[in-house]
Amino acid sequence: MPTQPASPGAVILARADVLAAISEDVPRLTRVFLSKEHRLAAAQLVQWMQAAGMHAHIDAIGNVIGRYEGQHPNAPALLIGSHMDSVRDAGRYDGIFGILCPIACVERLHQSDTRLPFAIEVIAFADEEGVRFGATLLGSHALAGSFDLAWLDKCDANGCSMREALRAFGGDPNAIASLARDPAATLGFIEVHIEQGPVLLSEGRALGVVSAIAASTRFQMRVEGLAGHAGTVPMGLRQDALAASAEMLLAIERIAQTRADTVATVGRIEAQPGAINVIPGQVAFTLDARAPSNTLRDQLCAELQSACDAIAQHRGVRLTAHVLQQLNAATCAPHLMQQLETSLKRCALPTRILPSGAGHDAMVMGSITDMAMLFVRCGNGGISHHSDEIMTAEDAALATDVLHDFILHFQPRST
Amino acid sequence: MPTQPASPGAVILARADVLAAISEDVPRLTRVFLSKEHRLAAAQLVQWMQAAGMHAHIDAIGNVIGRYEGQHPNAPALLIGSHMDSVRDAGRYDGIFGILCPIACVERLHQSDTRLPFAIEVIAFADEEGVRFGATLLGSHALAGSFDLAWLDKCDANGCSMREALRAFGGDPNAIASLARDPAATLGFIEVHIEQGPVLLSEGRALGVVSAIAASTRFQMRVEGLAGHAGTVPMGLRQDALAASAEMLLAIERIAQTRADTVATVGRIEAQPGAINVIPGQVAFTLDARAPSNTLRDQLCAELQSACDAIAQHRGVRLTAHVLQQLNAATCAPHLMQQLETSLKRCALPTRILPSGAGHDAMVMGSITDMAMLFVRCGNGGISHHSDEIMTAEDAALATDVLHDFILHFQPRST
Repeated sequence: MPTQPASPGAVILARADVLAAISEDVPRLTRVFLSKEHRLAAAQLVQWMQAAGMHAHIDAIGNVIGRYEGQHPNAPALLIGSHMDSVRDAGRYDGIFGILCPIACVERLHQSDTRLPFAIEVIAFADEEGVRFGATLLGSHALAGSFDLAWLDKCDANGCSMREALRAFGGDPNAIASLARDPAATLGFIEVHIEQGPVLLSEGRALGVVSAIAASTRFQMRVEGLAGHAGTVPMGLRQDALAASAEMLLAIERIAQTRADTVATVGRIEAQPGAINVIPGQVAFTLDARAPSNTLRDQLCAELQSACDAIAQHRGVRLTAHVLQQLNAATCAPHLMQQLETSLKRCALPTRILPSGAGHDAMVMGSITDMAMLFVRCGNGGISHHSDEIMTAEDAALATDVLHDFILHFQPRST
Repeated sequence: MPTQPASPGAVILARADVLAAISEDVPRLTRVFLSKEHRLAAAQLVQWMQAAGMHAHIDAIGNVIGRYEGQHPNAPALLIGSHMDSVRDAGRYDGIFGILCPIACVERLHQSDTRLPFAIEVIAFADEEGVRFGATLLGSHALAGSFDLAWLDKCDANGCSMREALRAFGGDPNAIASLARDPAATLGFIEVHIEQGPVLLSEGRALGVVSAIAASTRFQMRVEGLAGHAGTVPMGLRQDALAASAEMLLAIERIAQTRADTVATVGRIEAQPGAINVIPGQVAFTLDARAPSNTLRDQLCAELQSACDAIAQHRGVRLTAHVLQQLNAATCAPHLMQQLETSLKRCALPTRILPSGAGHDAMVMGSITDMAMLFVRCGNGGISHHSDEIMTAEDAALATDVLHDFILHFQPRST
């Protein structure tokens, strides 16, 4: 009795399982840039790309590129991809789904012998997470021509420089500059990615179209009050740096809540001296604020800072806010969003436009070409960067149907 | 030209300077139980006690006891004292002032050849802070007959047991039980101590009479929410354990503020996983709650817990509260408080009754005899357990005048 052929979604999830086993710490998944596992996973991807009818190679920075030619050789290409590296103890769909999904689409084109007026390139970016060398989005920066060659001198925890590691991997530090794509030969960039959040899940939708990748600012906040004995300083005479910080945290939460699509998070906090019977004299906490546009982000940050300043003044403590990082928003191209929405409709799926709070390779690729993103629901409350990250074969199949439809009907922007 | 004789207050402060130099880490002050510095400081105290007309000795646990006989030998004694050990990097008046002040009083009696109907014993307790072996109030527990001999097996950071250390010091583990005082031969215990807080300073008063040593409970609180990506989980879908904790911290502060003489402190806090771009899934914080009586403490704790529970429920996070330590209040004897107040009046000083939020040897001595405490203003915002701890020679002189007056007029409780 022949076995039933696996569903298209199940094939993708099975491939994600294969890649998840290519890890430095099985049964956990950790696959970092220029590692042995990077090379093994790249070889596997090359094989699947070739089986899908693509010419595939590993480029000078370690990206895997599969090209499916159009009706004419050297036609401009629609780029579709995501990253193949992972955080430590990662989920298996973050990044990877955005590689396997377009491979499956190209496979369909190949099986039906369909050639389009443009080429398709599926890209598995070598590094997005930045786990090994601190610098992030290295693969997309190379293709966007924004790879800073000084990054090659960055060293990993073992003191190995990126340059040495790249040579040992078989890459070529001297060829990175030549990887930069010609915008004229590039029709756009599409990234399919699990949402890594609970919005689609909570609304019962499988897919969503991203409006923009959020602008973000990260702060290190320091609150200085006066330490004292927990038993001998009456409440009314305290300058408790932690109580002041608690009031700031609630103000931060409240302000982010009252604005649409903004988020603000305090992820780390430390009180000094940190003894059970001593009133904290100093507190340090981090603040991560994100909004769909730079203007909204700047307004949000100004409001957060002014609320915290008012609390500090009211409580007689000193507050300093130091900006650690500021990333501008990347807006998705309206004509690509529109075409994704149309494909959703043709697949009988509702339209949901939502911002991406997380950064993605599309952010970098957006600097040289139009970009758009398709979000796929993930389960388990939307958890990601964790082994509990899940998605269903049904959602994988729906995303593949929509991307396939999008590719078939794709119209470059009229120039 | 003869130098001007130092004022009585200046003499006490100069003696505190001498003792502060007997430290394991000069110029900082650290003097722990059964150390070389303990022995040197004890020898210095014996010498000053003898110069003040007392018979002085170091007892089996390392307390220094100076006895000034009354009009008849073996008369019951009024005990007056405080501790001679210190925390690490300590202030120089914490404990020590409560030894030097009664020595100065006895010196005055001796110089005027005054004998009273009762004896006076000045006690320098060997250990109150518990820095070396973890167990606290060891000197007073020995005199109160509540020294647990199992404590002798406790070891310091170098693995040296209290038993070995006591033998090396010249003490006698086997004689500790015999140190217990006979309540019938004890008329009461008075402890003079710097306030270690800002109340007297903020009110412009030099001295205060303690009403009770606070009851306290210490909790370890754990809040469990749901970790998530700081960029992808909308504010409305979060179960942020740190935001919930911030709301609890403010409720704790507010509740302690609305009750008279109660304090509640969160001294330590940690958010997990503790990354700048991850919503905290777990938070641990400590809670130290104190009130002037056990009943008030229990009411305070019940109210704190119920407020935190309500916040946890409202926010959909899980809260657990684990009691780490519970100490009952020690009430000062009204007839001794009354006599201290009368002495303040005779010295033309205003009366201020205040609770002690910190623990003291008087807490333990109160289990075998009536006890009372006189608080002395400290400067620098009331800072203590720190090298910035200060007091003035004027306040030292006032405290000595009041204690001297108290001793001269002391009436034991009518039985």
